[in-house]
Amino acid sequence: MCQLLGMNCNVPTDICFSFEGFSARGGKTDHHSDGWGIAFFEGKGCRIFLDAKPSIDSPVADLVRCYPIHSTHVIAHIRKATQGEIALENCHPFRRELWGRYWVFAHNGNLPDFQPKTQGFYKAVGDTDSEKALCVILERLRQTFPEGKPPLEKLYPVLQKVTQELAAIGVFNYLLSDGEHFFTHCSTNLSYIVRQAPFAAAHLIDQDMTVDFSELTTPSDRVAVIATTPLTDNEVWTKIQPGELLVFQDGLPLKL
Amino acid sequence: MCQLLGMNCNVPTDICFSFEGFSARGGKTDHHSDGWGIAFFEGKGCRIFLDAKPSIDSPVADLVRCYPIHSTHVIAHIRKATQGEIALENCHPFRRELWGRYWVFAHNGNLPDFQPKTQGFYKAVGDTDSEKALCVILERLRQTFPEGKPPLEKLYPVLQKVTQELAAIGVFNYLLSDGEHFFTHCSTNLSYIVRQAPFAAAHLIDQDMTVDFSELTTPSDRVAVIATTPLTDNEVWTKIQPGELLVFQDGLPLKL
Repeated sequence: MCQLLGMNCNVPTDICFSFEGFSARGGKTDHHSDGWGIAFFEGKGCRIFLDAKPSIDSPVADLVRCYPIHSTHVIAHIRKATQGEIALENCHPFRRELWGRYWVFAHNGNLPDFQPKTQGFYKAVGDTDSEKALCVILERLRQTFPEGKPPLEKLYPVLQKVTQELAAIGVFNYLLSDGEHFFTHCSTNLSYIVRQAPFAAAHLIDQDMTVDFSELTTPSDRVAVIATTPLTDNEVWTKIQPGELLVFQDGLPLKL
Repeated sequence: MCQLLGMNCNVPTDICFSFEGFSARGGKTDHHSDGWGIAFFEGKGCRIFLDAKPSIDSPVADLVRCYPIHSTHVIAHIRKATQGEIALENCHPFRRELWGRYWVFAHNGNLPDFQPKTQGFYKAVGDTDSEKALCVILERLRQTFPEGKPPLEKLYPVLQKVTQELAAIGVFNYLLSDGEHFFTHCSTNLSYIVRQAPFAAAHLIDQDMTVDFSELTTPSDRVAVIATTPLTDNEVWTKIQPGELLVFQDGLPLKL
């Protein structure tokens, strides 16, 4: 299985602290060493850094650790291969365009024997069940709403339905974002924390590293961090319930 | 206008030497400082590094200069904005998926008042004429060959026709690749060089830097480098003729 890390904020924020602990799991504190990737939305634009090397050995991961890219929607993934060889085309996050927006997706889990029948709007480039799942999701959204992105209350039930269909096949924890809404689905393991004023210090589990967020933030900042398992050992993380599809915006889960 | 750099080889090769000279044009030896980007195909996989900062100031460009990624198809671009603000979503190269392959595109030129009518298979995320042109090209290919990628001799005339239609609107120099075929269209300025045995030393125009390729290559290696203007001052570059659409494979332009 793999590990997921996501961030959604109300102001562009760097993910250096969380990525420091998370990337250690890519071959140092844990065995997810079959490649990794991270996507940053900056406005409608999106850039994805990928490497088939373990995140602890990757010069690209060094860059991400040291170059603070400020973003409101971040999706990261470290891979322990289940389906598909260790190759760049199988590294998450995957990206496609729908309705003139980029959609970015990373998956933790396994959909055994997954051979979806689709109309072929989107086709997987690599061999993973995960990329195929993204193609199925986006095709469903596209066919249901051919004119463009609908309001969230119309989009949500369609996404929930196709998610449930896919989750019936196997383990299907995912992060999905178009830079406007940040969707998280929990099938087995996914937790989140919302950091907001009054900010305090946080200490990583995977590295002996502490950051005092009160020194780095303004009182109106709000940041949600979502991860397969908690990244810090002195904060209270909320476990997302199996079957729950949350939507984050501006650093908070929306009530739908 | 912008500048283009492409590379197509018969064995995965790094582009560090050419990128060194090319990236100097992004704010140092020339004024193309409105962002830059570079795409590397590695098998079917593809990664794109983008930055809205000038390439001479960009930590991401530092990484590309220092981390030798080996690839057979590379497309790079430094931007001097004509249409669309300086923003990540307007940085080339652009990428879409067609027939289960990634297609990567970068454009040098300007298509004034370009408002294409399309069926909406692909929609631009940013504001550039260039991304819209990619959407038009891929939609035409998709509609003509809905079943999958045809043999090159069937694909080429369709690509040539849509290219001519777009080139009638304005200046349309481009590089386009799916990791298998590398297409280059010259509207005004585009030159290439094929380096093969016996290899010699090459000296950059934009930096006082020389590389002796005979020390770095094997006798069967072949590398085509394509650029808006020649990158070296001691080699003979071939100017592609206006209206010419070349296809490179394994480091050579194909005869079609």
